[in-house]
Amino acid sequence: MISKDLFKQLAKKYATPLYVYDFDNITKNVLEFKEAFRARKSLICYAMKANSNLSLLNHLSKLDCGADCVSINEVKRALKAGIKKYKIIYSGVGKSNSDIKEAIESDILFINIESIEELLRVEMIAKELNKEVRISIRVNPNIDAKTHPYISTGLKENKFGVSIENAKKMYIYAFNSPHLCPIAIHFHIGSQLLDLEPIVSSSKKIVELIWGLLALKIDLKFIDIGGGLGIEYSSNDKIIDLYSYAQGILSTLSGLNLTIICEPGRRIVGNEGYLVSSVLYEKQNEYKRFCIIDAAMNDLIRPSLYNAKHNIEYIKQDSSNVLEIPALFNDTIPTKEMADIVGPICESGDYLAKDVKLPKTNSGDLIVIKSAGAYGFSMSSNYNSRLKCAEVALVNGEDKLIRRREEFSDLIDNEVEFLDSLDS
Amino acid sequence: MISKDLFKQLAKKYATPLYVYDFDNITKNVLEFKEAFRARKSLICYAMKANSNLSLLNHLSKLDCGADCVSINEVKRALKAGIKKYKIIYSGVGKSNSDIKEAIESDILFINIESIEELLRVEMIAKELNKEVRISIRVNPNIDAKTHPYISTGLKENKFGVSIENAKKMYIYAFNSPHLCPIAIHFHIGSQLLDLEPIVSSSKKIVELIWGLLALKIDLKFIDIGGGLGIEYSSNDKIIDLYSYAQGILSTLSGLNLTIICEPGRRIVGNEGYLVSSVLYEKQNEYKRFCIIDAAMNDLIRPSLYNAKHNIEYIKQDSSNVLEIPALFNDTIPTKEMADIVGPICESGDYLAKDVKLPKTNSGDLIVIKSAGAYGFSMSSNYNSRLKCAEVALVNGEDKLIRRREEFSDLIDNEVEFLDSLDS
Repeated sequence: MISKDLFKQLAKKYATPLYVYDFDNITKNVLEFKEAFRARKSLICYAMKANSNLSLLNHLSKLDCGADCVSINEVKRALKAGIKKYKIIYSGVGKSNSDIKEAIESDILFINIESIEELLRVEMIAKELNKEVRISIRVNPNIDAKTHPYISTGLKENKFGVSIENAKKMYIYAFNSPHLCPIAIHFHIGSQLLDLEPIVSSSKKIVELIWGLLALKIDLKFIDIGGGLGIEYSSNDKIIDLYSYAQGILSTLSGLNLTIICEPGRRIVGNEGYLVSSVLYEKQNEYKRFCIIDAAMNDLIRPSLYNAKHNIEYIKQDSSNVLEIPALFNDTIPTKEMADIVGPICESGDYLAKDVKLPKTNSGDLIVIKSAGAYGFSMSSNYNSRLKCAEVALVNGEDKLIRRREEFSDLIDNEVEFLDSLDS
Repeated sequence: MISKDLFKQLAKKYATPLYVYDFDNITKNVLEFKEAFRARKSLICYAMKANSNLSLLNHLSKLDCGADCVSINEVKRALKAGIKKYKIIYSGVGKSNSDIKEAIESDILFINIESIEELLRVEMIAKELNKEVRISIRVNPNIDAKTHPYISTGLKENKFGVSIENAKKMYIYAFNSPHLCPIAIHFHIGSQLLDLEPIVSSSKKIVELIWGLLALKIDLKFIDIGGGLGIEYSSNDKIIDLYSYAQGILSTLSGLNLTIICEPGRRIVGNEGYLVSSVLYEKQNEYKRFCIIDAAMNDLIRPSLYNAKHNIEYIKQDSSNVLEIPALFNDTIPTKEMADIVGPICESGDYLAKDVKLPKTNSGDLIVIKSAGAYGFSMSSNYNSRLKCAEVALVNGEDKLIRRREEFSDLIDNEVEFLDSLDS
């Protein structure tokens, strides 16, 4: 819990909109994962796509975390932030040849293979480099994760992974290749999961395959159980208990000597991030009331893209800039109880929350959008030529800037050099 | 029409994914607007939010275009690109005090006011600066534009503009203020409009107000009829003919001596932009076929966010990198006729087109996503630590780089300086 006073101080010191992350709670979340899996060798590979700020990664590296990367630039970020190469894994359905080459040369723990063609491509490049590459295969268990269709990934109609039948063939092929070393198996059925049963069912299916491979003397070292554990965005979300989660997984693994890799992202950082914004205007008519803030869909696209609901905290400022409304405009409509919280972007899709109970606000008051630590900054854009936010970490209760707010020059630096070349 | 050979050359020269814009066709589109409105004094204020590349703005400035800006950084971009300050207008529901101050000091044509409180705020700041500010008021005509809810803006339940009743009071107030000079009136009911009738109906409502103001000796100089004209994304989209559009608007203005400002964005650049990508992999199972390309939802979010349909052009490369599939994997399923075109991002929402008829592709073939000139690059993000594309213009048939592809350093430059500060 961050106090209203602290939010006020941070808004004043760093301006708004601003992302604030509670690193102390992030530490607690990591330790809770470790505790849940303490009965086994395990490695937490933090899913960087949720939030890849370098200082955050560095903080996680000190807690012995590895990184689950989904692009070669995420691999580079992880290395830059001090995460050990032997704790880095690299997934994704669309790795280019140069991505694969760079991943092999980086000597990371393993590459997670998502298709037959990728397996052959990795082998070809490993051969060119005269290397043996550690690989994992992502198996699509064809199980419904019961989440938003955009973040469901474990069904046959999703682009991810390969079928169990193909996976088996691929392990056999890899086992017989001098350039491929199959050491792990992976599944990941979706994101913001609130139901344990599909995860355990998936694990059972995967474990059957592991036993089948053992019978062929293909002895894997790691089972990568993915991530995707949901968080509580609202009080309706009943999250999966980590102890039950670990027990559910472990129950499927008896008799196997495998190190467990789990890939939490949202569950580590989601509820520990806040988007702090200032009220710019209120406006209402007989139909609707709007609270216009200085954060927008470019800063946090989840409400607009996934229809996600984020809780809101309203913080009144003593110094609120109350404009006196001349009698001419005296509005006979009393302030409605409910408001939509919207940003300055010029489209109706730009909203942060709808139908929120909100006292009458004044310019300068703060609106804090909660649970914004995951898929917040990492999905942010410069739409409407808006600048990306600054990011601040709270570490041992102290605030530290971990990303500078963008400036106008950041928007145009890659364009301005070409401005005159058209005159020729 | 850009030839397949030219796309191949550009992909080879600049790599993919790549945005390509046909500036010569953009010129034609601008001239078509001018021609349609030639019976009246008119000014085209290009809606920059569609695509704000500096070289594009510079090109438009040479065609006498002004700019419709929705943030102070768009105003700065327009000025930087050489658009004359007296052709720049500034709209948006969420202008901060510093935005307003900077706009006033930039001495642009006018500020488009979207609420009573904003009017008072502009007056207050103008007073502090001892200036008289030219303003327009955005009127919300409460007319259904019949477009996607996210880009419909002219209904009472939208956040934009003020009611006709409030607008009248605001003009009277501004007329009597020594710091406000009302010179224009504005409406804009939505984006990707394919129906002329709501636009003309809106104009009629606005013109009634203009006559009412004239009776009070408030003599406006400009009517800003907004933009939002749709383009043909697919052959189902029947677009509004520009001549009929102009005639429809002009028919409502008889007896009035007003300069028309129109704000086309998408209609100028939408169909003249192409997102050129390379095939990375194909994969299919009994349910689905996927063509995985090197462009993704971070490059073009319209399919995912608005369920937008973009036409696709497939370009076979002679040099396609055909991997031989070992017999072990020989797939008994023949290649399906229809495929989803998806990107490398790790979520199922990452698609560029669904159920597209597509020949069997090979790695290195090109997929060109059409009609990507508007709300393409301008909405792009760095999700999954992906780098923003390069942008290329075709000018008099010659290709010119107008934005450098991002590099890894662009991703971390604002973070790396803080990486060590946590160690203390």
